[in-house]
Formats: sequence, structure tokens, C-alpha cells
Amino acid sequence: ALQRERFVSTMKEQAEIGGTDDGGLHRLALSDEDRRIRDWFADQLAAADITVRIDEFGNMFGRRAGTDPDAKPVMVGSHLDSQPYGGIYDGALGVIAALELIRALDDEEVETEHPIEIVNWTNEEGSRFQPAMQGSGVWAGAHSLEDEYAKTDVDGNVFEDELERIGYKGEEPCEPPEEYEAYLELHVEQGPYLEENEKDVGVVTGIVGFTWGAITFHGEADHSGPTPMHYRQDALVAAADVISQIRRIPSSLGERTVGTTGYIDAKPNSINIIPDEVTFTWGFRDPSDDVIEEARRRVLEEAEWAAEREGVEWEYEDRMRAPAVEFADACVDAVQNAADDLEYDSMRIFSGAGHDATHMHSVCDTGMVFAVSENGKSHNESEYTSWDDCFSAASTIANAAVDLAGG
Amino acid sequence: ALQRERFVSTMKEQAEIGGTDDGGLHRLALSDEDRRIRDWFADQLAAADITVRIDEFGNMFGRRAGTDPDAKPVMVGSHLDSQPYGGIYDGALGVIAALELIRALDDEEVETEHPIEIVNWTNEEGSRFQPAMQGSGVWAGAHSLEDEYAKTDVDGNVFEDELERIGYKGEEPCEPPEEYEAYLELHVEQGPYLEENEKDVGVVTGIVGFTWGAITFHGEADHSGPTPMHYRQDALVAAADVISQIRRIPSSLGERTVGTTGYIDAKPNSINIIPDEVTFTWGFRDPSDDVIEEARRRVLEEAEWAAEREGVEWEYEDRMRAPAVEFADACVDAVQNAADDLEYDSMRIFSGAGHDATHMHSVCDTGMVFAVSENGKSHNESEYTSWDDCFSAASTIANAAVDLAGG
Ligand SMILES: NC(=O)NCCC(=O)O
Ligand SMILES: NC(=O)NCCC(=O)O
Repeated sequence: ALQRERFVSTMKEQAEIGGTDDGGLHRLALSDEDRRIRDWFADQLAAADITVRIDEFGNMFGRRAGTDPDAKPVMVGSHLDSQPYGGIYDGALGVIAALELIRALDDEEVETEHPIEIVNWTNEEGSRFQPAMQGSGVWAGAHSLEDEYAKTDVDGNVFEDELERIGYKGEEPCEPPEEYEAYLELHVEQGPYLEENEKDVGVVTGIVGFTWGAITFHGEADHSGPTPMHYRQDALVAAADVISQIRRIPSSLGERTVGTTGYIDAKPNSINIIPDEVTFTWGFRDPSDDVIEEARRRVLEEAEWAAEREGVEWEYEDRMRAPAVEFADACVDAVQNAADDLEYDSMRIFSGAGHDATHMHSVCDTGMVFAVSENGKSHNESEYTSWDDCFSAASTIANAAVDLAGG
Repeated sequence: ALQRERFVSTMKEQAEIGGTDDGGLHRLALSDEDRRIRDWFADQLAAADITVRIDEFGNMFGRRAGTDPDAKPVMVGSHLDSQPYGGIYDGALGVIAALELIRALDDEEVETEHPIEIVNWTNEEGSRFQPAMQGSGVWAGAHSLEDEYAKTDVDGNVFEDELERIGYKGEEPCEPPEEYEAYLELHVEQGPYLEENEKDVGVVTGIVGFTWGAITFHGEADHSGPTPMHYRQDALVAAADVISQIRRIPSSLGERTVGTTGYIDAKPNSINIIPDEVTFTWGFRDPSDDVIEEARRRVLEEAEWAAEREGVEWEYEDRMRAPAVEFADACVDAVQNAADDLEYDSMRIFSGAGHDATHMHSVCDTGMVFAVSENGKSHNESEYTSWDDCFSAASTIANAAVDLAGG
């Protein structure tokens, strides 16, 4: 059984690295804070006598041997990077739960047939570099290594340079070295459903599909006073019209459809100049790929209309397109059985957030456990999950992993 | 008569200081470039044997003596600061025309009854620090010195510190040292009307009123995926809704009404986080003060509605409120007569841009001359006025000034 005290104190320890004054985390991918949490994580694995392997994209792996040399590994983990002002559970909870699983197996000298491999994926958050789930995406073959190496952050820093700078460009190829038995990931729900339904843990059945992109309108900078309204080519008005629609498109599509603009940049950004270049993002998610495609079509149509109204030019780029995934029965059942055995009140739930499990789904059987998110809040320093809920979810994934690993 | 070659080469000389690669200017108030253009301007006055006076707000004055010791000075000038990527005519043309007037009077040893005083006002543009027309506003008593000293730019730099840093916090009180006979200002139109009507110069009859302000919405940062639409408090959607309306409010008010959002800042500005704090500006202008007040009322009403729809908090601050002004007949007539005497085809025009003349109107009789703006374009590096049009306007203001100064 997992040791609750050790688990909680390890959670608190990781939260010190890149911790903010308001109790959150600022641990962006490939930042100095990311380097420090990676060093710390490597130390934890070393202390458990596990060799750390780092691949050329910075993904970190550590394997606890199994008894059957032919048995495929069961992978368990998540990510240690965070949003700019994120919470201390998002990602880290899944990695620390995997660490506690290894420690508990060692304590009790339990052997499993299959190896259990712990993982920390590079840049899951997708805040500094896009797309999200980048490390698992390259590893699973959804993106090319070269394309992702070349990505830049808003300051123009190149991904590959930053990876080298923090010392985590490893030697291993970024791809599965062999076949895997299963991938399990524990994560906070980040939505309100478990709490609303008063559940202890969530048995995740799949992950919504995504469309992310950015639209840029090119208008004409001009004086905000003497320029008559009908002379204007205002890039910000075009953007505002589309952003209003991104909020409204979901209501006509599906119950679970969401649409968001998280980012906007206007130039020259001066009170008395008509803005001439405005870039902003869209993001839609839904369990149905058809709905996603329809949302993407509609936002581009809205951009076309807004551009016509304002007489501005426009362009767009896709930043992420991921189909919805449905998890393998073997994993969903293992998680459900674990929750039932531990007598946790659980419910089936479809994830509204993306996870590395999205990509792992194409590599092997995949499943997830959700921990309750208070108020459904995340990507915010006030993200909160009680230690009880953290521990219930950790115990559930541990039992499911041991089950799949034949322990 | 003015010397065209000297005038054009002086225009080109000033455009080198803070000149951009694309032929515009980047000479923000109280920047290093502003220091350099001020030093250059002081040298030009010194070369004309004129003593430079600098007041405690950085406004620069130089007086050419008149023959009658009791005659009140006629002030002529404009500003040397620019927008972030502005044109080379906006402001500078008015100062260089005044310089050329003094030089031409000296060449021909013309004496005037009234002194002629040349002025460079501090921070006319209002881009780095708000409000616009700040130096003339303090000098004319529209704003308190203390309030304006305390203003900060987006990086938190304090006006007074920056003024000291560039060495232009002078000794003179920032107020009229005596009564003035008249104030004349030459400026590029910055709108399309003179060109559309194929005129040589514009006889300005007044300046629109302004309302400027900033609105901030405070929502809740949350994850853009698992957060259902009806849980959201999205500060950016509220802002987008209001920005769309700022574009549309003018059409229901007046023919000359304009409304603009030039500035927006969203936090945390990450693609997968619902924005929790968004600040943006409004600016409305019209020849009627009632229309201005109605526009201000409507934008605040739109903000209230948007805040209610999104469930966000909001606040606003006024950044500038200036009533419309109508110029004194004495000055309008002097400008009209000068244009007629020089056989320029002119038209009466109401300014859609603010000018230091807005505030000078409360100090003494005030008038303005407009030079043709090609395509009405300004606050943009591609702002353009032909040297012919620059020279026609300069000749007009020179004759009007000499007329008012009794020369
Ligand atoms: N789980 C999570 O927050 N992932 C980041 C990618 C996304 O879903 O926006
Ligand atoms: N003339 C001019 O561009 N003034 C700046 C203030 C404004 O009108 O926006």
C-alpha cells in the first residue's frame, strides 16, 4: 500500500521548485525551474536505484524491472512542467503518484511480471511552446522531431536551444524503444464534474479532440481622431468580432463543446492609433471530431466575414489538431476495478483537458484516473485537490498498474 | 519670404533624430530620442540668437523681441515628440515652420511690434504618457502639475523622473508668464478632407472634443478545456464585446463621430487559459460635447452589460476629457487672409485630432493652419505631405503670424 505521509511530503517538496508566493507554480517548459525539477526528479529515481534515461526531446524515463524478460512494460507518469501561474497538482500529481508506486513496491519487495516504467513528458502544458503534449506527441510519432525542435516562444527562443541550455537533450531516440503493455496516467480533473457528483475518483474513458490555431488580421495603422469610421481598416475590431463568436459558437454545437481565446497581441497598441496587426488564438474542444471540424470551419468563416467588414487582410495557422480518443477497455476496466476494490465512489468521465495519454493511445492500451478538482479550477494558482482526494486517486492508479503489470 | 530649401533641409534634419528604417519617427516623449531632438532644437534657437527658456514641465520657449515693449507676444509652434512609429511631419512641421519664420524675419531684418515666441510643447502625442497635449494642458491650467508629474508609462516609469533623466526639467513655472496676443499652430491635417477637396491649405475653425478612458474586466483564470462555457468568467470576451461596440456606437451619433480602441492587454495571455484580467481603452471624438458625453455614457453602459453577461467585475478610469473648441475669429480671419493673399485654394475645416491649440484656446486667441495629408494617413510611418504642401502651409502661418504681430 502507498504511504500517505511520504506521498504528501513528496508532493510538497516538488511544489517548492518554481513555487509562487501565492501557492502556485511557475515552471514553464525548458525554463530554469524546469531544469531544477528535472534534476530533483532524477535524484528521486536514483535514490530508488532506477537508471534515468533521457531522450533527444527531453522526455525522462526510469524503469523498475519485471520478472518476465518477455513481458512488455507498463508505463505510468505525467508531466512536471506548469502553466505560467498554474497549480501544484496539474501534472506533478501523476508523476509523484508513479514515484510513490515504485517506492511502495520496493518497501514491500513486490515483484511484477512486467516492468513498470515511470515517465516525465516534456512540455505538456503548451503554454510557452505549442502544441501542448509536445514530448509525448513526438515520442508517439504524431509530430516530427525537426518541426518541434524549431518551435519558438514569444521571445523567439528556439525549443532545441532551450533544451540544450537546460542540459536535457538526451541521447536516446525520441520514439518507443519497444512495445508497451499499457500507459496509465493520473491527473487532476480540472473540471467540475467529480465534485458536483460528490465522487472520490474518476474513471476516464477518453479525451476530447482539439483544434487550436491563431488568426492574424492586417489592417492599417492610422490616427484615431481625424480618420472617418468608413476609412478604417481596424485589425482589432475584426479580432474582437471573432473573439465574441468564439465564445458563442459552442452553444450551437454540443453540450461539451468549449471555445476560448486565451491570447491576444495588438500592434502598435497605442491609445490613439488604429491597430494594424492583431494576432489571437482560438481553441475548441469536444468529444466528437465532427464537432471540432465544424467549430474550426466556423471560426475561419467568422474571420473571413470580419475581414470583409473591416477591409483587412487575414491569415491563420493551425497550432494543434488532435482527434478525440476513447481509451482501451483493458485499461478502463483495470481502473474501474481498482476503484471498486478500494471502495471509492467513482464515475466514468470524458476528459475536457488534453493529456499525454492522448498520444499514448496510439502506442498502446491507455487509461487515466482523475482526482477531484475543487471548483473545477486549474491553470490558476488557486487550483486545489485535498490530500485525501490526491491519495485516493494515487491508490487507484497504483492498484490498476500493478494489476496490468501482473503483480 | 520663407526660404524653401532651408525649410525642407531643416525638416529632413529633424527627421534623422529618432528616424526609423521605414522613413518614420520613433521619438516618444521623454525618451532618449526626445532628449536629442530637444538638444538639436535648442541649438537651432541659439544659432538664431534666441535664448531658450525651459519650464518645469519641459516645455521649451524662445522669443524674438518686438518693437513695442507693451505688446503681448504672438506664440507659434507645436511639438517635437512622436508616436511609437509615427510620421516625420506630425508636430515637427509646426515647429520647423516657426523656426523658418524667425529665420526669414532675421534675413530680411523685419521687425514686428509684438514679440514672436516659438514653442515646443512636451508630450503632445499622449502615447507613452496620457493624456495627449499634456505640456500645453498643464501650462494652460487644465491639469495640475503634481498629477501629471506622477503619471507613469506602461513600464511604470514616472513622468517626473523621466523628465529629470533627460535633463529637461526647467526652472520656469509651467504657466503663462504674462498675457499673450495669440497662438498659431501649423499641423498636418491627418485626415482626408483637404486632399479629397483638392485644396492647398486648410483654415482650421476648431477642434473636436475628446473622451478617452480605460476599462478593466476582472474574471477568473481557468482551464480552457474542462471548464464548461456556463462556468466561465472570461474577461477577454467581455472586452471583445465592448470593443465591437466602440466601433459601432459612432454610426448612431454623428457624421463626424469616431470611436476607437487602440490598446489592449490580456492576462495571463496563454492559449489554454481563460483570461482573467483585460484592460483596453476607448476614445471618442466629435465636434459636439453632447455627442461626446453620450458616447462615453454608452461605452460605460456596454461595459456594464458585458460584465453582467460574463459575470465579471469591472472598473474604468477617464484618461482624458476635453471639450470641443471653436477658434477666435481674429485668428481664423488672419489665417484665411494669409491663404487668400498667397492665392492658395483653401477650405474651412474642423480638426479631428487634438492639438496643443485645444488648451491654448483658454489662454488667448488661437488659430491653426492645416497642411494636406496624403491619404489622410498619420500615426503611421507612411504619413506623407509633399514639400509643396508643407511649404504652402508654412507660408500661410508665417503671413498670419506676422499680420497678428504687426509686422
Ligand atoms: N491537462 C492539461 O492542462 N493539459 C494542457 C493542455 C490542454 O489541455 O490545454
Ligand atoms: N495631432 C495629434 O496627433 N495629436 C495627438 C492627440 C490626438 O489627437 O490623439
